Amino acid sequence: MIHQDSIVALATPSGAGAIAVIRVSGQDAIAIGERVFQSVKGKALIKQKSHTLHLGHIVDHSKTLDEVLVSVFKGPNSYTGENTIEISCHGSTYIQQQIIQLLLRNGCRMAEAGEFTLRAFLNGKLDLSQAEAVADLIASDNEASHQVALQQMRGGFSNEIARLREELLNFASLIELELDFAEEDVTFADRTQFATLLERIEHVLKRLIDSFAVGNVIKNGIPVAIVGEPNVGKSTLMNALLNEERAIVSDIAGTTRDTIEDELVIGGIGFRFIDTAGIRETTDVVESMGIRKTFEKIEQAQVVVYLINTEELIANHTNLGAVRVELEKIKNQFPLKPLVIIGNKSDKLTTAQQANITTEIPDILLLSAKQNLGVDDLKNQLLSYVNTGALRNNETIVTNTRHYDSLLKALDEIQKVKFGMQSNLSSDLLAIDIKEALYHFGMITGQVTNDELLGNIFANFCIGK
Amino acid sequence: MIHQDSIVALATPSGAGAIAVIRVSGQDAIAIGERVFQSVKGKALIKQKSHTLHLGHIVDHSKTLDEVLVSVFKGPNSYTGENTIEISCHGSTYIQQQIIQLLLRNGCRMAEAGEFTLRAFLNGKLDLSQAEAVADLIASDNEASHQVALQQMRGGFSNEIARLREELLNFASLIELELDFAEEDVTFADRTQFATLLERIEHVLKRLIDSFAVGNVIKNGIPVAIVGEPNVGKSTLMNALLNEERAIVSDIAGTTRDTIEDELVIGGIGFRFIDTAGIRETTDVVESMGIRKTFEKIEQAQVVVYLINTEELIANHTNLGAVRVELEKIKNQFPLKPLVIIGNKSDKLTTAQQANITTEIPDILLLSAKQNLGVDDLKNQLLSYVNTGALRNNETIVTNTRHYDSLLKALDEIQKVKFGMQSNLSSDLLAIDIKEALYHFGMITGQVTNDELLGNIFANFCIGK
Repeated sequence: MIHQDSIVALATPSGAGAIAVIRVSGQDAIAIGERVFQSVKGKALIKQKSHTLHLGHIVDHSKTLDEVLVSVFKGPNSYTGENTIEISCHGSTYIQQQIIQLLLRNGCRMAEAGEFTLRAFLNGKLDLSQAEAVADLIASDNEASHQVALQQMRGGFSNEIARLREELLNFASLIELELDFAEEDVTFADRTQFATLLERIEHVLKRLIDSFAVGNVIKNGIPVAIVGEPNVGKSTLMNALLNEERAIVSDIAGTTRDTIEDELVIGGIGFRFIDTAGIRETTDVVESMGIRKTFEKIEQAQVVVYLINTEELIANHTNLGAVRVELEKIKNQFPLKPLVIIGNKSDKLTTAQQANITTEIPDILLLSAKQNLGVDDLKNQLLSYVNTGALRNNETIVTNTRHYDSLLKALDEIQKVKFGMQSNLSSDLLAIDIKEALYHFGMITGQVTNDELLGNIFANFCIGK
Repeated sequence: MIHQDSIVALATPSGAGAIAVIRVSGQDAIAIGERVFQSVKGKALIKQKSHTLHLGHIVDHSKTLDEVLVSVFKGPNSYTGENTIEISCHGSTYIQQQIIQLLLRNGCRMAEAGEFTLRAFLNGKLDLSQAEAVADLIASDNEASHQVALQQMRGGFSNEIARLREELLNFASLIELELDFAEEDVTFADRTQFATLLERIEHVLKRLIDSFAVGNVIKNGIPVAIVGEPNVGKSTLMNALLNEERAIVSDIAGTTRDTIEDELVIGGIGFRFIDTAGIRETTDVVESMGIRKTFEKIEQAQVVVYLINTEELIANHTNLGAVRVELEKIKNQFPLKPLVIIGNKSDKLTTAQQANITTEIPDILLLSAKQNLGVDDLKNQLLSYVNTGALRNNETIVTNTRHYDSLLKALDEIQKVKFGMQSNLSSDLLAIDIKEALYHFGMITGQVTNDELLGNIFANFCIGK
């Protein structure tokens, strides 16, 4: 499918930089480039080979706009599958604007969000889930989400779905054939083989559906509630956690401070820290409303980090037995979540006291946020709650809610087919459920699609992609 | 001059976008690319021709970081004159960071600000004033500054200087020769021809020095003070001026509102509007301090726009003669600056009153900021103060203070030589002044240079250029 119109957009981030890249795609892209570009070597752009670079000037009638490098890609060997040029110009916003306006006057129109990738999909360069992975890849800000998006973009997940769909489609056509010969009561589709295939599909679907829990964590980060009485050292702990990481990201501009403030990448996994008001027993109405809100926040969290002031704890309790009782109370407040109890201000304890606690009450993780002692232990503990096994083994992980939804529906249909087989359902009824399953498979890869769906997906892309 | 080390930097603006470009330059640039890049077609990067593009993956040992396009440029046919690769990757900051770190581990070092352009200069791809124009080009935000920077980058100004320097150098060597034969009292350098050359050089230098006034305006914008009593419609006028322009720039992101707020491009020329406190006669000490500050601001301005409320003016004065007296008072306050007197709120006057003022007091420019009437007349009036003749005629314009300084010094030396010639100064003394003049010419083009000067110039570049 070749589009008649040529689209243009800035492909690099907006703002001033050393260079900027303006992308043009469409049947006439190279011809339009020809109208505004004068090569230093004098050879026409349309006579150049694909995948070559040309130094020259962008010229508006007699006025030179910039000295540029133009990349030529001839369809189908381009990102979109169409003729494409990329103009590398000097990175002033004025120049970007002037060149884009010149291209608009010469027959281009502004690209819509994600339209280059949409064309890549429509021209068969990517399937739909791969196209969606491009947006995830650009949005990825840590190792895990980056690896998963990259794997998906390279077809890891959709290839598997497409293969299963292919096999299912074969059986479906055999069963359709049986319908044509319904009166003769023949069986083309081997029911035993079919049952085996259904088992396999069910197995794969269940594995992919299960992976969504991990995928969701990878894509959105793990919410961690930090709980504790005021002045117990929550902010100091946050800073201790953040400072180290900030040093790692600080050499790349554009990572805003606000984002780091409450999000943190540990071992390639994103963690979102949620600060909460102090929790204590109270009869005060207003205060208990605050505490109710804290519990709502804890509800959203997947892990609770509970800070206590070890110095006070030791001072207020005559023996470790009493401390244990206190800890049980805390644990009972959070029966359903992984809980890390941090004994902060450990630097105020003697080495003997510390050793005693470590041996006698291993539930407490001793830490000094101020002195930055034990912070790594906390990080390791947080990481241990994440099932990173799937990541390490390079397994396919589903991160996209749309895919998750289609997988659930496909599984439902496959189980209907399986049940139908077991109850000797007639071929025509079986065929209906198989078609439904095929439909949901197709929704993932884009073999089945509609304009509204495509509109929703690509509207979330940035312009220029 | 080929550098042994290879440098790497992000060449596109920081932040997330569809794509980002990472640039590597140095003798080993392509070899380093080879270590981290796996072409889809399998052919080694080092075996590729210059100015070609290659699809493949950036791979860190067995881990794929991204699918990328790599451009190969072989020295001396590259921006820096060295072997260069440009990696077009997906525009996530995480990916940019990962690829740059991988390149650093594989033998690159981070480029310093302007280091790519510094290398281009050191390798003879650009002279110094051309290199400086690259930074101006990226910083340019309006047509005039863009055109001047582009002309300078293409060598318009430095070619002229280099040619004159060449001619002067010829004479200088002839005069040096005379020194070798000093005892024989011969004359190799034709004094009449030399005098003609000096005249020509003096003429060119004076023209270039004069152009700096325009150049400065083009580069920094024209400061315009908007003066008037409170509530006379200053903000409304600003909005009327800005709204139209804002519509033009609004389709390109990255032009921040703050910049538009007080800077405005009219007819390709930048104007910087300076808001001032109201001016009126007063005995109040505090108020007169405020007014003194206003006058300081007016001092910095090159044009004063004085707003009066026409409705009040007409109401308060019985006849146009009295209005004229009032206007003279205003004019006397600003004897040294171009002054535009705006009769705002013209929509409150009858057509007959308007016609009467236009005929009888042509000094007043009638305008209704609120109704957006007459705003274009004001723009034309402001533009008329700018000598855009030089721009239209494509004349060479000096915008750089460093160049201006060197031109002044060169002119001084040339005038000394001229005076020396007229007073029959001996060849050896002439030679000293000629050498000084040559030195200042060389400082502009970079034929004479030192590390400190280069450091100062390139430190103002962005990293990646």
